[in-house]
Amino acid sequence: MADCLFCQIVEKKVPARVVLEDERAVAFEDIHPQAPVHVLVIPRRHIATTADLTTADRELVGDLVLMADRIARARLGEGRGYRLVMNCGAEAGQSVFHVHLHLLGGRPMTWPPG
Amino acid sequence: MADCLFCQIVEKKVPARVVLEDERAVAFEDIHPQAPVHVLVIPRRHIATTADLTTADRELVGDLVLMADRIARARLGEGRGYRLVMNCGAEAGQSVFHVHLHLLGGRPMTWPPG
Repeated sequence: MADCLFCQIVEKKVPARVVLEDERAVAFEDIHPQAPVHVLVIPRRHIATTADLTTADRELVGDLVLMADRIARARLGEGRGYRLVMNCGAEAGQSVFHVHLHLLGGRPMTWPPG
Repeated sequence: MADCLFCQIVEKKVPARVVLEDERAVAFEDIHPQAPVHVLVIPRRHIATTADLTTADRELVGDLVLMADRIARARLGEGRGYRLVMNCGAEAGQSVFHVHLHLLGGRPMTWPPG
């Protein structure tokens, strides 16, 4: 999607502090971090929201979570806690309409989650 | 796991308000809801935390998210927003050590997510 900010990051047309990437996903630093570690993990392919996922995307969702866990281990150390968040729609706080998984860690997380 | 609360819910040994279930996952109402809709989606199989997921579990993670989306559509209506949260470890607020995806919706969600 030419006008999607996260597609432009995937295509390296917009700069981002990329943490990790593979053939399916890209992880980069959130520009407004809410915790000592706050990374976004996104699919390379444009999918607007989690409501647009199909059964064909089941493995891809797992890829995002596994990449987030790998980053958490590297950045926080083995055994440290972290929170994963996905917002679907403006009412939930989604601002960029390309699926993204927030990885937050490095501080105790409170409840409710927003 | 005999001493896991969520395994006991899966096995119907502990009562829960089950919302939806299939061969891989079970969804039930959170007993301390933080939003008008607050449902937990868990795998039937015992997996303690997201740090215990392996590449063989990629599809299963997708199953949890797709089930949550299906419940959100039914409970909130098409196009309404929702937030998905997974806590890994006590520091992130995980209290039951069986992977669970929180689905929260029906109110505007704030930021940061806890």
